[in-house]
Amino acid sequence: MENIFDKLLHLPLFQGVTQERLGEVVEKIPFHFLKFKKGERILDCGDPCTHVRFVISGRVRLEYESKALKFKISHELSSPEVISPDYLFGLDTSYPFSVYAVDECGILQVDKQDYVTILQSDKVFLYNILNYLSRNSQSMKTHLLNLEQASVLERIALLVSTFTSQRSEHIALSFRQRDLCHLLGARRPALMAAIDYLLDKGMIEMPNTTTMFINDRKQIISVLTKMDLK
Amino acid sequence: MENIFDKLLHLPLFQGVTQERLGEVVEKIPFHFLKFKKGERILDCGDPCTHVRFVISGRVRLEYESKALKFKISHELSSPEVISPDYLFGLDTSYPFSVYAVDECGILQVDKQDYVTILQSDKVFLYNILNYLSRNSQSMKTHLLNLEQASVLERIALLVSTFTSQRSEHIALSFRQRDLCHLLGARRPALMAAIDYLLDKGMIEMPNTTTMFINDRKQIISVLTKMDLK
Repeated sequence: MENIFDKLLHLPLFQGVTQERLGEVVEKIPFHFLKFKKGERILDCGDPCTHVRFVISGRVRLEYESKALKFKISHELSSPEVISPDYLFGLDTSYPFSVYAVDECGILQVDKQDYVTILQSDKVFLYNILNYLSRNSQSMKTHLLNLEQASVLERIALLVSTFTSQRSEHIALSFRQRDLCHLLGARRPALMAAIDYLLDKGMIEMPNTTTMFINDRKQIISVLTKMDLK
Repeated sequence: MENIFDKLLHLPLFQGVTQERLGEVVEKIPFHFLKFKKGERILDCGDPCTHVRFVISGRVRLEYESKALKFKISHELSSPEVISPDYLFGLDTSYPFSVYAVDECGILQVDKQDYVTILQSDKVFLYNILNYLSRNSQSMKTHLLNLEQASVLERIALLVSTFTSQRSEHIALSFRQRDLCHLLGARRPALMAAIDYLLDKGMIEMPNTTTMFINDRKQIISVLTKMDLK
């Protein structure tokens, strides 16, 4: 049980909470633990976001897909991690992505109402979610205002940044080249030049012309944050 | 005093709160009322976001400016309205825009710590801020996944949507054409065609080649939300 507690304390939305305080919360609030087998679907795109969900063991893959364009972007999250809590509230309370178990994995879920009770009971929990949501809300504006040239490279970084989070791994894009050009607002030669640059720097791999693996998210995103260093 | 209370109850983050409950809050928590003259600067870009700030009378203009590109976007907010509470928390707790009084206007501000106390005291206040932040956090991903063609028109709508909110008025873009092309990922002929279309539909006005006034935000944003109606 100590092991589970330790894990919970490392969840992004539970950070900074004392073990004692968490113990009190767990006593009062139902925490549901679910197990998924390798490859199993955990959530379907469009599923209602009725619970805050955490990966507490193993890894999951989140996959977004454009409705009209041939474009998918997916990434993996390892435990301990939260699965996009930005769909619990707001206009759209259904997940815009599917989630699969990469290997056997454990999910902890807390009902939305119960989670709100937790938020009200302790400022640390509350600050965690407010920080998480605010960071997401700020990032696009901050990045756009800091673009140096709005180059295709910067726009690729912006796209990756939008659909992934700091601890995302194994980011993969799958696309029809024409649609990726549209999405980035890039002509094909400019896209090709950006891809060559990224391949050359070892920042991406392309097993074929319609699949891109991001080797190092941080390095790609650094294209956007250079301005901050000046 | 009744008048002020009525206004407070219409503030986006206070919606759904009973008059009685708000009375209790106002008794305990310091609410600061400030007056600004027409044209006066209320906030400077980079100012720390130490308070949640509301426009309770008159109108303000928010102005964003790109650091490296020649591009500005500004819009007005009329009372009752909140001034971007997404900078209270998160990575960046300084405002990325300046705010001016369009005419004589009244600002109500509540200290961040006091605001957190309010959030903990009542679920209605808490839901309001969680909904506000989540909506902002969701919108870029939702729009990108719903793009029909990622046309220049859609990208203009996306840019306007990112920097303004539902009740923004008098939206104005000021730019060097080359930089707007970069920002949109558009070649000049494609930008010109999109501008002609928008002018023709009466959705924008252009007093000169480097200034664009958005006549109807809703109409422009509808380019992005068509998919939802299908």
